[in-house]
Amino acid sequence: MGLTLAQKIIKAHLLSGEMTPGADVGLRIDQTLTQDATGTMAYLEFEAMGVPRVKTERSVAYIDHNTLQTGFENADDHRYIQTVAKKHGIYFSRPGNGICHQVHLERFGIPGKTLIGSDSHTPTGGGIGMLSFGAGGLDVAVAMGGGEYHIAMPTMTKIVLTGALSPWVSAKDIILEVLRRMSVKGGVGKIIEYGGEGIRTLTVPERATITNMGTELGATTSIFPSDDITRAFLAAQGREADWTALSSDDDAVYDEIIEIDLSTLEPLAACPHSPDAVKPVSALSDIKVDQVCIGSCTNSSYLDLMRVASILKGKTVHPTVSLAIAPGSKQVYNMLAKNGALADIIASGARILECACGPCIGMGQSPNSAGVSLRTFNRNFEGRSGTADGQVYLVSPETAAASALTGVFTDPRTLEGWEKIEMPEHFLINDNMVVEPAPEYLSETVDVLRGPNIKPFPVSKPLPESITTKAILKVGDNITTDHIMPAGAKILPYRSNIPYLSNFCFGVCDKTFPERCKAEGSGIIIGGANYGQGSSREHAALVPLYLGIKAVVAKSYARIHCANLANAGILALKFKDEADYDRIDQMDTLTLPDIRAAIQNKTPIILRDETKGIEMEVIPMMTDRERAMVVEGGLLNYTKSLSK
Amino acid sequence: MGLTLAQKIIKAHLLSGEMTPGADVGLRIDQTLTQDATGTMAYLEFEAMGVPRVKTERSVAYIDHNTLQTGFENADDHRYIQTVAKKHGIYFSRPGNGICHQVHLERFGIPGKTLIGSDSHTPTGGGIGMLSFGAGGLDVAVAMGGGEYHIAMPTMTKIVLTGALSPWVSAKDIILEVLRRMSVKGGVGKIIEYGGEGIRTLTVPERATITNMGTELGATTSIFPSDDITRAFLAAQGREADWTALSSDDDAVYDEIIEIDLSTLEPLAACPHSPDAVKPVSALSDIKVDQVCIGSCTNSSYLDLMRVASILKGKTVHPTVSLAIAPGSKQVYNMLAKNGALADIIASGARILECACGPCIGMGQSPNSAGVSLRTFNRNFEGRSGTADGQVYLVSPETAAASALTGVFTDPRTLEGWEKIEMPEHFLINDNMVVEPAPEYLSETVDVLRGPNIKPFPVSKPLPESITTKAILKVGDNITTDHIMPAGAKILPYRSNIPYLSNFCFGVCDKTFPERCKAEGSGIIIGGANYGQGSSREHAALVPLYLGIKAVVAKSYARIHCANLANAGILALKFKDEADYDRIDQMDTLTLPDIRAAIQNKTPIILRDETKGIEMEVIPMMTDRERAMVVEGGLLNYTKSLSK
Repeated sequence: MGLTLAQKIIKAHLLSGEMTPGADVGLRIDQTLTQDATGTMAYLEFEAMGVPRVKTERSVAYIDHNTLQTGFENADDHRYIQTVAKKHGIYFSRPGNGICHQVHLERFGIPGKTLIGSDSHTPTGGGIGMLSFGAGGLDVAVAMGGGEYHIAMPTMTKIVLTGALSPWVSAKDIILEVLRRMSVKGGVGKIIEYGGEGIRTLTVPERATITNMGTELGATTSIFPSDDITRAFLAAQGREADWTALSSDDDAVYDEIIEIDLSTLEPLAACPHSPDAVKPVSALSDIKVDQVCIGSCTNSSYLDLMRVASILKGKTVHPTVSLAIAPGSKQVYNMLAKNGALADIIASGARILECACGPCIGMGQSPNSAGVSLRTFNRNFEGRSGTADGQVYLVSPETAAASALTGVFTDPRTLEGWEKIEMPEHFLINDNMVVEPAPEYLSETVDVLRGPNIKPFPVSKPLPESITTKAILKVGDNITTDHIMPAGAKILPYRSNIPYLSNFCFGVCDKTFPERCKAEGSGIIIGGANYGQGSSREHAALVPLYLGIKAVVAKSYARIHCANLANAGILALKFKDEADYDRIDQMDTLTLPDIRAAIQNKTPIILRDETKGIEMEVIPMMTDRERAMVVEGGLLNYTKSLSK
Repeated sequence: MGLTLAQKIIKAHLLSGEMTPGADVGLRIDQTLTQDATGTMAYLEFEAMGVPRVKTERSVAYIDHNTLQTGFENADDHRYIQTVAKKHGIYFSRPGNGICHQVHLERFGIPGKTLIGSDSHTPTGGGIGMLSFGAGGLDVAVAMGGGEYHIAMPTMTKIVLTGALSPWVSAKDIILEVLRRMSVKGGVGKIIEYGGEGIRTLTVPERATITNMGTELGATTSIFPSDDITRAFLAAQGREADWTALSSDDDAVYDEIIEIDLSTLEPLAACPHSPDAVKPVSALSDIKVDQVCIGSCTNSSYLDLMRVASILKGKTVHPTVSLAIAPGSKQVYNMLAKNGALADIIASGARILECACGPCIGMGQSPNSAGVSLRTFNRNFEGRSGTADGQVYLVSPETAAASALTGVFTDPRTLEGWEKIEMPEHFLINDNMVVEPAPEYLSETVDVLRGPNIKPFPVSKPLPESITTKAILKVGDNITTDHIMPAGAKILPYRSNIPYLSNFCFGVCDKTFPERCKAEGSGIIIGGANYGQGSSREHAALVPLYLGIKAVVAKSYARIHCANLANAGILALKFKDEADYDRIDQMDTLTLPDIRAAIQNKTPIILRDETKGIEMEVIPMMTDRERAMVVEGGLLNYTKSLSK
């Protein structure tokens, strides 16, 4: 029986476990990346491991999140990351060089290699046939130290693309169609591979838009084959030597096959407040637009911005629309500045932001009250824009630019003059904003510079025999990591200061949660379905750990957050009978009797509600390795225990 | 006896008073400008006056301060300003169009006209021979309504420039030399006029750099003659028709004459934390540089950035320096994007920020802890960068760019290849980001859009017969407006929300002050010497007004704050005997018996301390006009009373 492309790459990197769907597999990781919002913590964790030099083939630290710098904290963090990277063999991409996923695709990604990144959109790398996973910072730290990266072996889904896109319809519309069909839960436990004749019509940046936003499906990752189009892209980046042809075997078996005829697609938009609330743009034409933002790791490539420039050229942004554009990388920005496209964009009245994540992570450009904002980004969760009642729609660059000119939701097919944007034969290559690490023999001479905002991360304790505490918080379905640990311009600068961050934990749902935790000293969170979806931020586990959370009991979990809970030494438990969710009230006293023995011996776990005098069974959401990890008190303790 | 240029313009605009130094003169104002941080309040005040249409020749509302938008407040304010401008006949410069002073110089300023702006660097307009003053928002509102603008008639200082600058020495070094000689208090009560053969060597942007930073001398304003160089600049802006030749009479009399030989100047830097702590760059060469910022209303012209591009071209920003560059206007930005200079700047690794004030007002790019930041800006007050222990040096673009490349303070004369940057014969003219007001007959159809952060400003009541209240706060000497009403990235977005701002009033001195005021309902502040020094922000009077402050009794006052108190209808009173300061304790009950009659009739004013059972005399710090103003309850009520 043949293998899928993802299975081949997994097989070539398998260090432990069996490739049976659902089974725990340990993978060798070739490359890692971090961004600065999660990276500071990842490097603090790496330092705690005591490994002098990264053991990966390539590790890169990017600065792209905390770039507004409204206080000393960000610049201090940048300096910390720059010096810790220099000391330990990590490449450092300076602020202004661009968004990690865009730059990594351009300059470092290699087909057939494995990559983990402390950012949930790391699957962008699947656009060149790289097996790329978003992961917690601690997982990245362990991988940098040469440790295995563990996932539950996913099932395989193939999305067969046929036909070709019509003019003004683009890659964003493909992934929005996939989201419409599969929903934000549809990809859980799956690797999504794209194939079919239609992929021949898609350039690498277009493929990367699709794999990037596979994250919103909840997929483990997404991947395209590595073919001549991949080769041409790498050659244009001066990296043809990094190319190899990669594809699935003809007789590979998929658990699910979905077919999309590209020629039938029309411009789509994900409506507030979920990436899968997808409607045709043509059905939204009555909606007045207040703001348009173009950029992010999803749609900020040369191809995207050349299209935008061609739409804006000679026109003026509608008087009541604020159009903000952030190029995805210095390479993109520089090429647009050289070829005149940037001048066209500026002339139209667009506000050009620094080359970084910017408004996609709520770093500025919050829309007006109840404002309608069209964004080429990947997430439109409520409040993520920084405006609590902001109405964010996710659209293609074409739809965004067209609507910026008219002031209402505009189907770009109403525009004239579509022309194919040709991929450049040679990208403008200038890696002067990537700082190489010190040679190994000089590592000891490098001082790591730390600012006063960088606090040690919380250390968890081994699992006790039994747990008795309160149901400190009860929440509903689809709680995102943005609910658990909000981001945004006011909080993100404190990502390396867990004690301070803890004041904002679950602030969206319940402002008194941190106080209650501190008063009680510990607690268990009761969650609904799809608990912990969204961003990969491990802070959504580390901050609850700091606040004394011992366990989460939910109906179901998002993959990365579940892993982050185990990494933090917090029990992720699932109701055996979902109806039990309704029987527990917030502040009930709960007991997990003999929990340590139950986790170790794999015996059934009982949750007793002392207040109600009832019992129920809960299922641990853990692999054998994660059981061992939680018993030790998290991944860091576990990793140390292995080396004893 | 001949007149100086400034005297001629004042004479042509004189509506009341005599042109005797120190005397109160009322001027007709031709143009106004606002920026968004002070503008929201100015337009609220304008609305309260009930004037349907501005009576100036040209009023322009700029958005350049609150452009980070880390919450809904900024975008709401922008929308409010845009709609209120449209309704009342004011031109609106959209966010992204640039910094008010740069854009106004390019597109609107006219030699010989009067301009007031709700920003202290409005004297930039003096670079084209326009008589331009920074003023409080209420003064701007009154001027828009056709009211007089009052100043104390200044004395006249002439700075005679001879010779020509050496290569790598620039206009910034001239004004730094003036600051070195005159100090930050040296311009108080003066208008500074530049003359001499040397001015023939200076282009308009260079002249504007000098008049801009005249504000740091404490000068009332600064001005250059309008000559052939002015004409060439306006012609290149397509505005030759706006030009007239203007100069002082040959026999004009100056109170002070200072001579500077340009050929003797070398690159200078203002050291932390004052613009007059000036040293030669060559004496600072040991200092390691962490950050360089280029831009602001002082140094962000086409000329400035072309010079910077020529220095950066083909080089790389030093690995440990963060270089941020914000072009001053869309015109500048667009021209650089078209001629390749921006591509050179991007290639070097500079971080390009949105075309706005940005880091100059602490809006982002705060340096690292204790970081050394070289900035082409105009102020380096302690903490203004957003980093409390940041070390900010003010330098020329040449010094900034040279130091960005080396990582240490670098005299640009060590660079090679200086070439004259030619002024363009035609600037790129595209006013599509300036929205014209609605025609008058359509004004009524324009809805003014207000967000929830925009609160009505406090309205003061006519002065009562007598006042009895508590000495709600007692403070020491040298209280600044930053003590009274702090600024910074975290509070600035709330400038249109006086109730919210009031929670921070005097927070630096006494966190319980706002609570006490609210509990008592009113109060009198007891101050020491030099009360209200520093920034001209009218919020330092409006917020106390909101909190019920009826009077300040101090040993002495800073001039602008004293005027702002009168504008707000708050009594500014001075101890006749400074020793009385020590006899009053905080929370004593105080009475000003028959205060209304005393102010109206110019009879002695008695302050009775009921708690101590003592009486003392206090002196009103008011012109006759201000007495009338305070009796009516402030400038707004006074202006209304005049039109009855």
